[in-house]
Amino acid sequence: MRATVMFGAGDVRIENVPDARLIEPADALVAVSRAAICGSDLWPYKTLEHSDTGRRMGHEAIGVVEAVGADLRTMNAGDVVVMPFAYSDGTCVFCHEGLHTSCVHGGFFGAGEADGAQAEAVRVPQADGTLFVLPVGKDDAVLPSLLTLSDVMATGHHAAVAAKVGPGKTAAVVGDGAVGLCGVIAAKRLAAEQIIILGRHPDRIALAREFGATDVVSERGDEAVERVRELTDGFGVHSVLECVGLEQSMLTAVSIARPGGAVGRVGVPQDDTIPAARPSFYDNITVGGGPAPVRAYIEELLPDVLEGRIEPGRVFDRVGSLDEVPEGYRAMNEREAIKVLIEF
Amino acid sequence: MRATVMFGAGDVRIENVPDARLIEPADALVAVSRAAICGSDLWPYKTLEHSDTGRRMGHEAIGVVEAVGADLRTMNAGDVVVMPFAYSDGTCVFCHEGLHTSCVHGGFFGAGEADGAQAEAVRVPQADGTLFVLPVGKDDAVLPSLLTLSDVMATGHHAAVAAKVGPGKTAAVVGDGAVGLCGVIAAKRLAAEQIIILGRHPDRIALAREFGATDVVSERGDEAVERVRELTDGFGVHSVLECVGLEQSMLTAVSIARPGGAVGRVGVPQDDTIPAARPSFYDNITVGGGPAPVRAYIEELLPDVLEGRIEPGRVFDRVGSLDEVPEGYRAMNEREAIKVLIEF
Repeated sequence: MRATVMFGAGDVRIENVPDARLIEPADALVAVSRAAICGSDLWPYKTLEHSDTGRRMGHEAIGVVEAVGADLRTMNAGDVVVMPFAYSDGTCVFCHEGLHTSCVHGGFFGAGEADGAQAEAVRVPQADGTLFVLPVGKDDAVLPSLLTLSDVMATGHHAAVAAKVGPGKTAAVVGDGAVGLCGVIAAKRLAAEQIIILGRHPDRIALAREFGATDVVSERGDEAVERVRELTDGFGVHSVLECVGLEQSMLTAVSIARPGGAVGRVGVPQDDTIPAARPSFYDNITVGGGPAPVRAYIEELLPDVLEGRIEPGRVFDRVGSLDEVPEGYRAMNEREAIKVLIEF
Repeated sequence: MRATVMFGAGDVRIENVPDARLIEPADALVAVSRAAICGSDLWPYKTLEHSDTGRRMGHEAIGVVEAVGADLRTMNAGDVVVMPFAYSDGTCVFCHEGLHTSCVHGGFFGAGEADGAQAEAVRVPQADGTLFVLPVGKDDAVLPSLLTLSDVMATGHHAAVAAKVGPGKTAAVVGDGAVGLCGVIAAKRLAAEQIIILGRHPDRIALAREFGATDVVSERGDEAVERVRELTDGFGVHSVLECVGLEQSMLTAVSIARPGGAVGRVGVPQDDTIPAARPSFYDNITVGGGPAPVRAYIEELLPDVLEGRIEPGRVFDRVGSLDEVPEGYRAMNEREAIKVLIEF
């Protein structure tokens, strides 16, 4: 079969690889019908060291179950399923607590633990605990929005939950990538009264406004902090959704939280420390978040997607085939595209 | 009157200073009957640069109201009151949210904003919002425990709240100073099932066990992390109370939290960054806490103190007069005393 392999920074190729197949009795084999390139795929795209074997990329997919292992009870061949970016058994102590990304038998797709999903097919470990069977056909018009339940919409929701967004509160979203835009959707869905997007790309800002952003701050650093304070009676916001992962964005996030506020971080951190430890202490600011337990959120988010109350699929502003994946990486890395949808 | 003045690291003196007096109509003048030396006073004791004017020290006191400003409505001369380490108006948006340490008209005693309480008398700004009238006489036997509501017991409680301690959960307390010991009391009071104290002073450990600690870890660094994991099925604890403030203690705190767990930090941070930003991200660990909004907690903690269900006053293992305060600093700094009570 054909799959996406990254051999080093900037070097993404579509290669012939051995067919995906069942290995463990808890596996499912899924024929991918939609996949995506993620903002987090751009970190290795910038920095991955060269190797001859390369890394199999991709962790967002919707597909059709082709074969099921002997242990599976919740799905059959032919089912349309959405695949969270992490696999999980659904039965361990952490899965029961709703933290599927810490499953004791879990792992991540496209990160060495399970092959990537930017491919014609993918083996899904712990499939009963991982996959969610969708009540739609494999070419339904709502598929792009459903695909975001693999990662970005659920990740934006996680940021909002970790940032304690709630009715009447003020929120700010740091980052105008696909996750940040989904964070805007999530903040509005959780009834934030004011939603400030920090970003500077006109097309993304326009989409953020359509998703519910009430204010835009395009400044950076200290000026951004000042602007947010001006917009919030000088106090900062109750909830900050950190959707980038850089030291500077984290510093901004902590600095625009109001006393007693919370930062929900979902941008994969590129540094070993969290800045501004003293100001956040004196202001009793909470920093939470991490990889979104996508599987825990699908039930809650699905009805809003199916009934069209939220349209996170609009973050896909480019559609291509598997062959166009390398160009998709380039376009996303150069900020020409927000997020690329791959159709099979 | 006589008051404690720190002129530089290691240089604490009892000086004659102008009498404390009412200045603003919201002030109260309090004759101090009990004060204390705080672990946080030891940070300037180690590092304060020399000055000829010095710093007026102390932020924990119980006393008798001597005079009230024209605006005060909730107290009269002769009332016995406990003084939180921060003053607050009780009416602003943050006070209404229970975050009195961020009061828009607030400040801290003994930190340049209001004079210190290791003195014969203290001027209390915003007294209606700050002081809490106690239903006891000025020499009641429970006074030492009531005095801890100024800071250390309420701070230990804040650490436990920020660390999300609850029934059946596992907790660890990093630090065996007075705040850490009060953190043990707080964790037990909030029904933690397992309470691990990290510390190595035998007398403090013995007291921690009496307060409810179920396990003791005297190792440091990686070995401490390993020991805590051994005690918790390999996972770490749900709730970590960070009661020190050093980079190493914070690193330990984050490292012993289980996935999805929370660190409540109340040790005044001595560094600009929070370590282990990546592990805490991947494990979805929340870091919260800060200066305890003592005033918000007194109502809740007071009945347990008055009825003897908790005895935080036992952290005082030395009693002295105002003249003995310099020796008290020395003894606490050299870990000869846990916490010094000053009687007037």
